[in-house]
Amino acid sequence: MVTRVIVSFLFLFLIFRSNVDAANKHIRNRHPCKRLVFFFHDILYNGNNAKNATSAIIGAPAWANRTIMAGQSHFGDLVVFDDPITMDNNLHSKPVGRAQGFYIYDKKDVFTAWLGFSFVFNSTQHRGSLNFAGADPLMNKTRDISVIGGTGDFFMARGVATLMTDSFEGEVYFRLRTDIKLYECW
Amino acid sequence: MVTRVIVSFLFLFLIFRSNVDAANKHIRNRHPCKRLVFFFHDILYNGNNAKNATSAIIGAPAWANRTIMAGQSHFGDLVVFDDPITMDNNLHSKPVGRAQGFYIYDKKDVFTAWLGFSFVFNSTQHRGSLNFAGADPLMNKTRDISVIGGTGDFFMARGVATLMTDSFEGEVYFRLRTDIKLYECW
Amino acid sequence: MVTRVIVSFLFLFLIFRSNVDAANKHIRNRHPCKRLVFFFHDILYNGNNAKNATSAIIGAPAWANRTIMAGQSHFGDLVVFDDPITMDNNLHSKPVGRAQGFYIYDKKDVFTAWLGFSFVFNSTQHRGSLNFAGADPLMNKTRDISVIGGTGDFFMARGVATLMTDSFEGEVYFRLRTDIKLYECW
Repeated sequence: MVTRVIVSFLFLFLIFRSNVDAANKHIRNRHPCKRLVFFFHDILYNGNNAKNATSAIIGAPAWANRTIMAGQSHFGDLVVFDDPITMDNNLHSKPVGRAQGFYIYDKKDVFTAWLGFSFVFNSTQHRGSLNFAGADPLMNKTRDISVIGGTGDFFMARGVATLMTDSFEGEVYFRLRTDIKLYECW
Repeated sequence: MVTRVIVSFLFLFLIFRSNVDAANKHIRNRHPCKRLVFFFHDILYNGNNAKNATSAIIGAPAWANRTIMAGQSHFGDLVVFDDPITMDNNLHSKPVGRAQGFYIYDKKDVFTAWLGFSFVFNSTQHRGSLNFAGADPLMNKTRDISVIGGTGDFFMARGVATLMTDSFEGEVYFRLRTDIKLYECW
Repeated sequence: MVTRVIVSFLFLFLIFRSNVDAANKHIRNRHPCKRLVFFFHDILYNGNNAKNATSAIIGAPAWANRTIMAGQSHFGDLVVFDDPITMDNNLHSKPVGRAQGFYIYDKKDVFTAWLGFSFVFNSTQHRGSLNFAGADPLMNKTRDISVIGGTGDFFMARGVATLMTDSFEGEVYFRLRTDIKLYECW
């Protein structure tokens, strides 16, 4: 009987220990609990394409203007966007949602941006939103940003999104492939 | 004795399994560990209300200015704010903190914004901050954004906040009801 | 035998309970799983220091301009930065990474800002990024913001960063000590 009681306490201690570890550090699983790939399409306003444009410069340094991109790797240009999200790389495919938010070019000697945006889904496949933040050193083939939260179908999600410039045309159009790997699903 | 050892290992295995699951996916509890309702009040500068205004346009597209809101659903207007937070819906109630951050109108054909802000508390009830990010399709009756972190009393918090426009007066005043549900409390 | 089965079920119940608790609330460990201290250095463009400047005003209220800081505690100034990160407080030490993002002064009667930025590491010691967001009431000796995510060496990190103004020179230079405490490591 005494042995059983000791064993019981030992178990309880182990359970407690391993839980603390689970919560803070050790036995996390690096296999995504959900994985999704999307494309989004950004058409920047350049003074002549108001009808098609999905984004526009709304902040710029003292030495620049808000119609064309600034010199020095666009340093200081703040762009707001509302871009269609598609399942494949075709701009004209039926959008499954909108990528909404902003990017700021933040470096003078190379193209790099800081991103804050959401994927807002309102399709038969997905409802809800995913929120993203992170640095985008856009000359790198791939770059990772954070999935910092989610709502609806993506309630409380967290993860990493790998961005890849799938295509671009001068300073007016670019298409980003977004490989979303969620490691916390509820 | 042998049976007991086997049973012990079985238990340990189960503990391990369930912890990995807990960390990544399965047995999360969708019942909030903390719930808080607040109101915050935004008075936008319009050229004539410098004394009372709690927010101002600081970025706008090339075709707009920073004194009055842009056309096309205010697309491209970036607004910074420092708004009082109250426990009830009365602008003149004693504030319990300040809502500080920004919103950007990001869509041409409907009112939608992207929000990045904090609730900064410094009252007898609450000390610390909650940080928020997400899309705010403000024509919807309610919309969910993410609680992406917290400090002080809200150390490491994560959750979802449901926003509701409780009242507004033209383009100068609006009041948001914020129903904060935290699902990760430390 | 019957007793053993009851005890087994009791254990399973306890394991389940404590896991749900671990995931949402109770037995989190407030001891950091990783702690890092860095300094970053911000040199604001003021019209005369284009060569050395690491940041620039890119948004400002209607009553201000983008070359010098606005009155009223710089309310409304949006600054983009790409600042060197060093291990010690010497601006000329070899940088281990770059702090990239933005801050917005968001209050009229006291210096307070809202921060969204990343630490981007590309050194022998660290590779990857840490993403931050939060309110910075910069007249306080220390202030806490959230680590909202990470990539690479900081995969899925979450935590709190304590900022301290280590030095400043007028409105052109400041140095922030950043004490990063991660409580979720993968």
